[in-house]
Amino acid sequence: MTQYGATPRDSVALDDERRALVIIDQTKLPRAVSVLSLTAQEEIYRAIATLQVRGAPAIGVAAAIGVYLAALGIETDDWDKFYSRFVSAKQYLASSRPTAVNLFWALDRMEGVVIRNKNLPVSGIKYLLRDEAERIHDEDIRVCRAIGEHGLGLIRDGWGILTHCNAGRLAAVRYGTALAPLHLGRERGRNFKVFADETRPLLQGARLTAFELMEDGIDTTVICDNTVSRVMQNGWIQAVLVGCDRMAANGDACNKIGTSGVAIIARHYGVPFYVCAPTSTIDMNVPNGNGIVIEERAASEVTEMWYGERMAPEGAKVYNPAFDVTPADLITAVVTEHGVLRPPYGESLTALRPIQGLQRPDQYR
Amino acid sequence: MTQYGATPRDSVALDDERRALVIIDQTKLPRAVSVLSLTAQEEIYRAIATLQVRGAPAIGVAAAIGVYLAALGIETDDWDKFYSRFVSAKQYLASSRPTAVNLFWALDRMEGVVIRNKNLPVSGIKYLLRDEAERIHDEDIRVCRAIGEHGLGLIRDGWGILTHCNAGRLAAVRYGTALAPLHLGRERGRNFKVFADETRPLLQGARLTAFELMEDGIDTTVICDNTVSRVMQNGWIQAVLVGCDRMAANGDACNKIGTSGVAIIARHYGVPFYVCAPTSTIDMNVPNGNGIVIEERAASEVTEMWYGERMAPEGAKVYNPAFDVTPADLITAVVTEHGVLRPPYGESLTALRPIQGLQRPDQYR
Repeated sequence: MTQYGATPRDSVALDDERRALVIIDQTKLPRAVSVLSLTAQEEIYRAIATLQVRGAPAIGVAAAIGVYLAALGIETDDWDKFYSRFVSAKQYLASSRPTAVNLFWALDRMEGVVIRNKNLPVSGIKYLLRDEAERIHDEDIRVCRAIGEHGLGLIRDGWGILTHCNAGRLAAVRYGTALAPLHLGRERGRNFKVFADETRPLLQGARLTAFELMEDGIDTTVICDNTVSRVMQNGWIQAVLVGCDRMAANGDACNKIGTSGVAIIARHYGVPFYVCAPTSTIDMNVPNGNGIVIEERAASEVTEMWYGERMAPEGAKVYNPAFDVTPADLITAVVTEHGVLRPPYGESLTALRPIQGLQRPDQYR
Repeated sequence: MTQYGATPRDSVALDDERRALVIIDQTKLPRAVSVLSLTAQEEIYRAIATLQVRGAPAIGVAAAIGVYLAALGIETDDWDKFYSRFVSAKQYLASSRPTAVNLFWALDRMEGVVIRNKNLPVSGIKYLLRDEAERIHDEDIRVCRAIGEHGLGLIRDGWGILTHCNAGRLAAVRYGTALAPLHLGRERGRNFKVFADETRPLLQGARLTAFELMEDGIDTTVICDNTVSRVMQNGWIQAVLVGCDRMAANGDACNKIGTSGVAIIARHYGVPFYVCAPTSTIDMNVPNGNGIVIEERAASEVTEMWYGERMAPEGAKVYNPAFDVTPADLITAVVTEHGVLRPPYGESLTALRPIQGLQRPDQYR
């Protein structure tokens, strides 16, 4: 089911009555606000793999709802059979994309519910799974709003802000991560001049960031990715805000391809570089960025997508990694829902661990 | 007249018999090798303005041929009338693009011929103008080959080379500037692994650099502009080679938008950054990069070109400068036809001045 119309309040949601994952199809923006209602596991897998739903937090919420819907479809009263089929469904969704840790984090949280409640009837476990999926959804809103509050303390009215890719409400449920301070600031009458990197190859900056900021009435200028140095040369940027798909225990931040280049250029010009990330994005099991799997995507995204025909000669090789790693020493601060972390991140992230409660059941992975 | 077929030996040439400027239409590559034969001044102006012919050296040669063709059409035996109309034609072509100094340099050389030979009949001046245009054309080939020789001394067999935009044979007459060492190395059996930035918004890297390197059998991989940091993180790049549209007297280099970002990132990873430029690109009248006019081009190049429809929301602002300035202190060496210049460039460029003979008649501008 596809609906067209006004932008829904949440980018990702559960429609429990229809047993559906409801998302805004991000591949159609900014041309159309197309709302998809997905029920089959294959549809949900494809939505994640093809970036109809994207952004680390949004992927996590979508996967939690997705695996809950899978659980609903498992017809058995036997826990062992239920668990076995639940794990298959979980692994299927987990294989949709390799890099963002929120995907695994959310699926692990859902699996934890099944394991902890082995003594309950399967019908009861399904009920608890729905609660957990909705909790993950609702937490994301609160967490992103808290990131917005903390981030807003780092930027001033009238500043020029540069952002890369889309770590906004479309990448989460409601506020986003990197863009949460801007949305929240706007609610409070502050004005920013935002420069959105278009973010090749899939143009999430031009298509999504510009869309959601302009919907919010924020002054937005789209630039090509290679124009970052020029706008900083011009003195137009006072801070960089980006999101994160997975942060290692030492603070190395894996994010959309190009982020590390922006960080290097920001350092050159003395512009502060802030990574905004919920603690669900922090993977304490990975000591540093070298341990993060970088997804490589199809060459056609670079040479053919959006264009009517090939834009590079037939046979030209293409290297199309979806992410890169920004080393911790280029990051001015990490903005989480619990506050602003400063280097050395090995220490500040570890100190955070008891606060966040680290619900991630690593033993079950 | 448009011809399709094999790539001509020269990207820009004079067809004296047909009184035409002959170019490869670079807006059609890599889909088609379309050869244009241009006779009207408006066609030649448009070819430069719309980037059918582009690249600082190629623009210079095209303008020299263009103003010669304009001179041929001036029907008078009176030197003053001839000169007045020549200057109008020159100014018209000079207004086609503002940044590359080769355009003005070539037109000034042509004007110098008219002024120095005031004593000759106009028919004789036209003859000398043809010689000068052909000299500028032929010099470009020799100069680029010399740049290739000097540049080849800086890179080793098997190295990974990154380049931005297209400073190859398509940007000059035959060898190119930044790509001359690669073409020449290839003639001598050397192998390089080249990474070509696609170079948004007009994709000269994906369309033109990949095309001409692959025609030459060179291993070429296209990357998005934002992937520069990642390929350097991977340790794949041993040197950067780029061209230049105008170099100031202190060595600041104005080149395709994004070049300064590549230079900053190269410095971060300790990768040498070489600017390849004929001395015709050096503007000793401009003390530093702040004095160079940066062309801003249409927003539609970013949001609509190549795509069937808008890729950013209606009303989104776009900042689309065609160039940026790489400060001299980020440049490892400047490769000219006279050899490899090292910092401080204020000194090494000044020392070059008597060698190059500086034929540019500044007093006539």
